[in-house]
Amino acid sequence: RILSPPSDSDANGIMSRAKVLTIDTMNPTVKKVEYAVRGPIVQRAVELERELSEGMKKPFAEVIKANIGDAHAMGQQPITFFRQVLALCSYPELLSDSTFPEDAKSRACRILQSCGGNSMGAYSASQGIDSVRQDVARYIERRDGGVACDPDNIYLTTGASDGIVTMLKLLVCGEGTTRTGVMIPIPQYPLYSAALAELGAVQIDYFLNEEKCWSLDITELQRAVNEARQYCNPRALCIINPGNPTGQVQSRQCIEDVIRFAAKERLFLMADEVYQDNVYAEGCQFHSFKKVLFEMGPEYAETVELASFHSTSKCYMGECGFRGGYMEIINMDDEVKDQLTKLLSVRLCPPVPGQALMDLVVNPPQPGEPSYGSFIKERTATLSALAEKAKLTEQVLNTVQGISCNPVQGAMYSFPRITIPEKAVKEATEKGQQPDMFYCMKMLEETGICLVPGSGFGQKDGTYHFRMTILPPTDKLKILLNKVKEFHQRFTQQYS
Amino acid sequence: RILSPPSDSDANGIMSRAKVLTIDTMNPTVKKVEYAVRGPIVQRAVELERELSEGMKKPFAEVIKANIGDAHAMGQQPITFFRQVLALCSYPELLSDSTFPEDAKSRACRILQSCGGNSMGAYSASQGIDSVRQDVARYIERRDGGVACDPDNIYLTTGASDGIVTMLKLLVCGEGTTRTGVMIPIPQYPLYSAALAELGAVQIDYFLNEEKCWSLDITELQRAVNEARQYCNPRALCIINPGNPTGQVQSRQCIEDVIRFAAKERLFLMADEVYQDNVYAEGCQFHSFKKVLFEMGPEYAETVELASFHSTSKCYMGECGFRGGYMEIINMDDEVKDQLTKLLSVRLCPPVPGQALMDLVVNPPQPGEPSYGSFIKERTATLSALAEKAKLTEQVLNTVQGISCNPVQGAMYSFPRITIPEKAVKEATEKGQQPDMFYCMKMLEETGICLVPGSGFGQKDGTYHFRMTILPPTDKLKILLNKVKEFHQRFTQQYS
Ligand SMILES: Cc1ncc(COP(=O)(O)O)c(C=O)c1O
Ligand SMILES: Cc1ncc(COP(=O)(O)O)c(C=O)c1O
Repeated sequence: RILSPPSDSDANGIMSRAKVLTIDTMNPTVKKVEYAVRGPIVQRAVELERELSEGMKKPFAEVIKANIGDAHAMGQQPITFFRQVLALCSYPELLSDSTFPEDAKSRACRILQSCGGNSMGAYSASQGIDSVRQDVARYIERRDGGVACDPDNIYLTTGASDGIVTMLKLLVCGEGTTRTGVMIPIPQYPLYSAALAELGAVQIDYFLNEEKCWSLDITELQRAVNEARQYCNPRALCIINPGNPTGQVQSRQCIEDVIRFAAKERLFLMADEVYQDNVYAEGCQFHSFKKVLFEMGPEYAETVELASFHSTSKCYMGECGFRGGYMEIINMDDEVKDQLTKLLSVRLCPPVPGQALMDLVVNPPQPGEPSYGSFIKERTATLSALAEKAKLTEQVLNTVQGISCNPVQGAMYSFPRITIPEKAVKEATEKGQQPDMFYCMKMLEETGICLVPGSGFGQKDGTYHFRMTILPPTDKLKILLNKVKEFHQRFTQQYS
Repeated sequence: RILSPPSDSDANGIMSRAKVLTIDTMNPTVKKVEYAVRGPIVQRAVELERELSEGMKKPFAEVIKANIGDAHAMGQQPITFFRQVLALCSYPELLSDSTFPEDAKSRACRILQSCGGNSMGAYSASQGIDSVRQDVARYIERRDGGVACDPDNIYLTTGASDGIVTMLKLLVCGEGTTRTGVMIPIPQYPLYSAALAELGAVQIDYFLNEEKCWSLDITELQRAVNEARQYCNPRALCIINPGNPTGQVQSRQCIEDVIRFAAKERLFLMADEVYQDNVYAEGCQFHSFKKVLFEMGPEYAETVELASFHSTSKCYMGECGFRGGYMEIINMDDEVKDQLTKLLSVRLCPPVPGQALMDLVVNPPQPGEPSYGSFIKERTATLSALAEKAKLTEQVLNTVQGISCNPVQGAMYSFPRITIPEKAVKEATEKGQQPDMFYCMKMLEETGICLVPGSGFGQKDGTYHFRMTILPPTDKLKILLNKVKEFHQRFTQQYS
């Protein structure tokens, strides 16, 4: 038993005392966490921006960050109505300002009346403001063609990220071969792998089918779960629909099959539906897991455990900085629900401005209200521009030899496959870099374009990709796509 | 090896399928979490409020929640300047509104210029907005009489809670007798015990000295760490100053002694300074750990690892709902810092409105600026009212036989010791309740006053306390204190 502190402090004097917290003595699960969307390539991009601003010469005039789904940062304008209500909630003296529309004022009053002391500065209930949860429930009912939604099943969150991590946290238990395993798509949004690493859960990969437009095959799910049962206890299945980074939109049939699979294999379903309004391709439509589940009848509707996630960060509003979101939880055991509420209470509450914004997203201006016209106009403009950019991206990328890009059916990203010449793969390997990281780093240094290598999301061995957002304004996106094209051709030539 | 899902689904048909996630199969560390500030007593208070609103007869007309440090919920008004800037940032069209003061506009412009796309809707850097971190650093330098502060050491957080949990997370490692132990004061703010339970770290209690006004004795720290070395690896020491729930303000000498102790015992220091502006008692003054550390010379200033925490939730602003906060980190190993940044990046960023608010707190109106006068007036009014209420609370409670209350030197709470008659202790025990929980529940049912029992914060065995905020408006506080007095007398009589 150690009865005194480690002794180098005594022996060598305090000045040479080793640090308490070092890379060798820190939490080992934290070390395993990786998060490519803000990884080394983005750090280099920030450096390059600083170098440019300090007048250093570069082969490009600006860094274009197409690495993250951050719409406002790319110039998208916020919805006027949302911001009016937020201003009114922040500074209620404005309620007597006649330039604000009446519907904005009435929304603001409703939100403030549900806040302690009528102030966004009060903590809310840990599960979120009651009236916001009610509005979310009504939104879900409308969205799902009348399928009932109980506000008690709604939990407001600090962005969808918070909800996802919290649900995963509840699910983790066991050791060794009974350790919780969680199935995630590959390619995935790296929040999932990061959270699983931190929680010490087992990541079970199922591969999306790139040849079939990144669709989900039940046979692949079956393969993955069968293999995983050899070494862990698979307990949850995560689906991202529409997909990030892959941009596919799941068919209704496929969702039904997934639900049946989850029921058969006894898996808790987690449906990440933060891109539910981002569907562009003709013939594609968003179907919520909740709706499909309930349409499958009580055998499923009353048994399959489902958590679904939404956020203020994506869709047409793109309000990432407010960290708003919610999760809906279906068929969760009552005792576990109590534990969830308790766990959330430790962090006190999600940010109230984010809750207010979530309220506006689920309860936007209605026909007949003064702000309805401008709201619809702004929303439509943003979504049509995204649809156009989705198409443009796919088209231009597919003109490049050595790049092949599935249709961007939804979400905000293209995830094209790229051919990397042998010689480049070899050079990367010698550098200890993933070949697509090598490729993206080179692109960044030569063109100023910041993308995320496919290896950050996971991909089939021997295939290479990058993820590029479709968010830059159309004219900038065109320039960007052309630069990517030229770079790819140059790179291919250089390493052939 | 399990090769198929647990079989009750097959044997009994899907309808009777047991749940995937139950109290027995959920994360066991989550089950261990407790958080009294929002525990059963608060749930009952919410129920009572609903019953009242439904017209049910009660021995009181309203529920008064003195359980949580939530100033706005208790009627405290926000600082006008802060809310003006937030409204401007939310809806920048207001920048052309001549009714807003120029200094509010220039602050809003500065914040927006540091946001991606000039919008609070963009994700910020994970560590927080650069210019806000710079403002925080300058604030700390002013506060600490010129001791240097590097913005690179500042991390903006989602309330102080987020920073505290994140730091604890980094520190946890080892198993069995090498498992990380963390020293926390008893009584404590229960975020600490909750986070340690969830992380599976060992909680090491050191007791504050109630007889000496809840002061901190180094001999008690020494006792605690010596004993703990028998069964774990003590790595961190948490201090809450000014204290929650205990309201004491640490002397400069004591802080120096604590730092020396941490250096000697090789402990990472965590200083929770969210109440740094809440100091009321004459002769008391807030001293930051950072300042004292640097005044102790390089032997300490260059070696002792320190994280200190601040928040927008307390002090004179009380903006809890915005979830703003920061931590400053001193002498942290560079590699660990990289790991910290990476870990934070998974959650993308703290809420931007909370960051903006933090910026205003550290960079309020200056002499000569148009809003300076009203800012000072509002701040002074709030802080003087708090000082008055701190005194009032102590005085009234000390008139009650069987209640004894230390001076409320700082923070927002009184934590009086209460005598609970033997008979009441017995009845509580039979009910399986802590005696002070029994007492507080009874008070809630009879008077509508919602307090938190001392057992939720920890206390010496055989002593009982409750925590009561000093936040209700003065007239309401007087009524409340009288009701507490009457209740205590009735309770004592009933059980004597
Ligand atoms: C699939 C997916 N889920 C969740 C998130 C988290 O978003 P937020 O936490 O901002 O709501 C993102 C963000 O990009 C995402 O792409
Ligand atoms: C001592 C102490 N630390 C930290 C916190 C967390 O506050 P927040 O997360 O709202 O900043 C509180 C809240 O009451 C507290 O009392």
